[in-house]
Formats: sequence, structure tokens, C-alpha cells
Amino acid sequence: MQEHIEYMQAAIEEARKAEELLEVPIGAVVVWQNQIIGRGYNLRESTLDPLAHAELIAIKQASEYLQAWRLLDCKLYVTLEPCPMCAGAIVQARIPQVIYGTVDPKAGCAGTLMNLLQEDRFNHQVDVISGVLQEECSLLLTQFFRKLRAKRG
Amino acid sequence: MQEHIEYMQAAIEEARKAEELLEVPIGAVVVWQNQIIGRGYNLRESTLDPLAHAELIAIKQASEYLQAWRLLDCKLYVTLEPCPMCAGAIVQARIPQVIYGTVDPKAGCAGTLMNLLQEDRFNHQVDVISGVLQEECSLLLTQFFRKLRAKRG
Repeated sequence: MQEHIEYMQAAIEEARKAEELLEVPIGAVVVWQNQIIGRGYNLRESTLDPLAHAELIAIKQASEYLQAWRLLDCKLYVTLEPCPMCAGAIVQARIPQVIYGTVDPKAGCAGTLMNLLQEDRFNHQVDVISGVLQEECSLLLTQFFRKLRAKRG
Repeated sequence: MQEHIEYMQAAIEEARKAEELLEVPIGAVVVWQNQIIGRGYNLRESTLDPLAHAELIAIKQASEYLQAWRLLDCKLYVTLEPCPMCAGAIVQARIPQVIYGTVDPKAGCAGTLMNLLQEDRFNHQVDVISGVLQEECSLLLTQFFRKLRAKRG
């Protein structure tokens, strides 16, 4: 569990980089053999790229590092429950385990709206742990949106 | 319908580029105001990138062209029914209409295994047309896998 907390803290650091750019603060890291080989944070608005979610950026970096599209023996840590695109990418990359911080009631596809990570009909299923540093991950988002609303008056 | 056939032919041309590289032949184009603004073909093995599906490549190109993450008024044509990752990306990019050639019984998430493009609980739903140049799109794949099996003896 201590290990999960440390890597989730690294994912939270990534989320804070998004926040500095006024992006919705979501961060992710990919871990392989006790080292972080992929990092990403939400950059959708800055890059005007619908694919620029934290998980996809971290997965791409990790696959470049391993020179493989199969991220075997990797773990992905992400502050927010993955959306359908990111859950699908996790399955495509054959990542064995995902650890996420807080649920996404609007688009979460790792147990909330549905569970694309544990769908028997796909050719890969993922072990899922949720709720690691849940409060901190959730607070990042609620504070961000509170500030945004205050700014917009 | 004639328009759908022409753009699907363009997607098939993309798929043939994948085939030349011994990649599973899947191709996609994004159309906006009667012009193709994004093209992509499967490059997973060549690039060792789990995200290098035809649809994601075409979506990224289109969003660079429009300088927007919302691909409003765009249509995406793809030879094979989208997988969960690509279906999720289509929803993320807010693409209003998807036209695909043939179904994917193993991973199709636009009507076959499930329908992520028309999920009421997501914040975007997509109009879907299937079966355009179905036979040609399907033949591309079956012939590719037949050749592959023959080579592998």
C-alpha cells in the first residue's frame, strides 16, 4: 500500500502541472520495475487535442521507453477514474493493473458507469484498485472547479 | 450515399497503406466541409505504439487542422467498427457522425459488443451508419489474415 501511495503522489504532482496551466487537474504515471517510465497530465485545452488526457500521454511515453506496444508488467496510476477512451487505451496496451484515486461519476468507465477494464468479452482484463489518496485526488478537482466558478462570477 | 462511398474508398486507401507495411489493414478519414482534413491507418506494429490506431491518427490530424479539440461538423469514416479506445476518442472529440465499413465481432464498440457511441450516460452521442462498402472492408481483413497464416505455415 505504501508503494501505491508514493506513486499516486507522483500522479498528483502531474495533476498539479495541469492545474498551473488552468487545465482540469488530472495526472498519471506508468510504473515498471519500481521506476516511473511514463508521466502525463491533462493538456486538452493547451494543445487543443482531444486525445491529450493524462493516461494517453503517460502510456505513449512508457511504450516509447519500453519500445513495445504491450506494457507488460506495468502499473498505471491515475488521479481520476479513466474515461472510455483511456480505459480502452489501457486495454489496448495490455496494462495488467490500474490504480486510481477518485471516481468520475460523469464518465468513469472503470467501475462507475461501466467497467471496460474488466469486460470478459475483450481480450484483456485489468486488475483495478480504487480509492488510493481518494480525498486528495478529489479535492484537487473540486477546488479547481470552485476557483473556476468564482472567476467566472 | 454516393458521398459515403467516396469517403469510405478514401478510408480503404488508407487501410491499403497499412497493409503494405504488414499492419492489420484498417484506415480512417475525417471529413469537414466536404474535404478530408485527417487521414490515418493502423501503425501499431511499425511504431510500437498501442495508441496508433487509424481513428486516433486521423482525429489528431483533424484537430490540428481545425485548431480545436471539438471536431464539430465532422464525419469520421473508418473501414472497421471502432474498438473501445477509438469509440471513446470519437466521443471525446465530439464527432457528430461515424460511418464504418464492417463489424468487429471481437472488439467492436459501436453496436457489436456494446455501443459506446450511443451511450445516454455520456455527454455526447454519435450518429452511426454501418455497412458502407462492407464487403470490400471485410475482404481486406480476411485476405490479410489468410496471407499471414499461409506465410506462418
